[in-house]
Amino acid sequence: MNNYKLTIQYDGARYKGWQRLGNTENTIQGKIENVLSEMVGRNIEIIGSSRTDAGVHALAQVANVKLIEKMAESEIQNYLNRYLPQDISVTDVCSVHDRFHARYNAKDKTYLYKIWNESYPNPFMRKHSLHVEKKLDVEKVREAADYFVGEHDFTAFSNAKSKKKSMVRHIYSIVIEEDAGFITIRIRGNGFLYNMVRKMVGTLIHVGLGEVQPDEIKTMLESNDRSLAGFADANGLYLENIGF
Amino acid sequence: MNNYKLTIQYDGARYKGWQRLGNTENTIQGKIENVLSEMVGRNIEIIGSSRTDAGVHALAQVANVKLIEKMAESEIQNYLNRYLPQDISVTDVCSVHDRFHARYNAKDKTYLYKIWNESYPNPFMRKHSLHVEKKLDVEKVREAADYFVGEHDFTAFSNAKSKKKSMVRHIYSIVIEEDAGFITIRIRGNGFLYNMVRKMVGTLIHVGLGEVQPDEIKTMLESNDRSLAGFADANGLYLENIGF
Repeated sequence: MNNYKLTIQYDGARYKGWQRLGNTENTIQGKIENVLSEMVGRNIEIIGSSRTDAGVHALAQVANVKLIEKMAESEIQNYLNRYLPQDISVTDVCSVHDRFHARYNAKDKTYLYKIWNESYPNPFMRKHSLHVEKKLDVEKVREAADYFVGEHDFTAFSNAKSKKKSMVRHIYSIVIEEDAGFITIRIRGNGFLYNMVRKMVGTLIHVGLGEVQPDEIKTMLESNDRSLAGFADANGLYLENIGF
Repeated sequence: MNNYKLTIQYDGARYKGWQRLGNTENTIQGKIENVLSEMVGRNIEIIGSSRTDAGVHALAQVANVKLIEKMAESEIQNYLNRYLPQDISVTDVCSVHDRFHARYNAKDKTYLYKIWNESYPNPFMRKHSLHVEKKLDVEKVREAADYFVGEHDFTAFSNAKSKKKSMVRHIYSIVIEEDAGFITIRIRGNGFLYNMVRKMVGTLIHVGLGEVQPDEIKTMLESNDRSLAGFADANGLYLENIGF
């Protein structure tokens, strides 16, 4: 079998997320599988690194696909980009070892959240950022973010259903930058629970608005109480990088 | 009368351009006039600096409006941003001298053109840039652009209808930059004829692709022949600045 690693960028605004759901057409995985299936003339399944939610974007999602056919990397990439909708783009195709698995081999993930922090709306980023009109106190947001860094039980910051699996995740870094009206929050960790980034960012926004004090993050983490965290819109969230 | 200067940003993708056309709702001028008319309870007309075409964007269009009412600048801005569609944003409202006229007082204009110059599409910029798959020779584009700078008769690079008015315009500068897959062309001049930026940029792209030699720009300008120039899509064009 020939194993190919695909790097994929998408505007998630009009999709029900990455993961194919039965016969529902409107997922990114589904769109890519349909084109690959057309390409080789039989049903193809791909494995994605991250199951991004409905409305979430990706700058570099990774997937792998096994094919009987030996094809040139550029041939696969060109075929996909010719037939995929314009809001999904394959930025790289690379032949990889037979055992490469996009989900199991992912060592770290980076998510990026974009906040448009001006009193007036941004017409170009209305579906690609969260508009917060009131100025956020970025220093307080940074102070709060530090409490997330390290290994913690993130039960309070997730909507994960299974209680059998571990809720412990390691956050390596959170970097917060201000640039031309935007505040970007970049979170790198060994993995993320369902809705974890959106609940973390939603809570950080409450801190920036002065509604929550930075050190309350510590109490929230320890509480395992899911009713305390905020929840930020999918529009502003991007899967930025997968490390292997 | 109280005269207010409005600075306006818009995503032109779904509009028939700036200028109100009879009763057609779908223009940016029309949308703003409707909201202002609602605000004061009678029909209001505004004067825009530039009549951007269908699909063309603006980072800082300028308009002025005269009102009998003395209103706070922030009150007008907030009312507009509350009731305008999300793809139009008023970034500033400023009380100005009674004689300020957004069109007559405009001294220079800057247009920006964004080209996405990678082999794969950019999902986030598909309606806000022109995708050119083949790598452009940027040095040749710069060389060609130099021929446009200065005072010239731009008949060959316009679709302006009236032949009575002067076709002479002064281009102050053309700056071409490469950044993360994009090539941006920034053109500043004392004014632009109908379709002039799009015909200039379309021709520069032909140069970048090697289809036209840089020094042919000189011959084209002198020819006054409208059949020679290229024509770039509205998607990539932004009105960036008006100088007064």
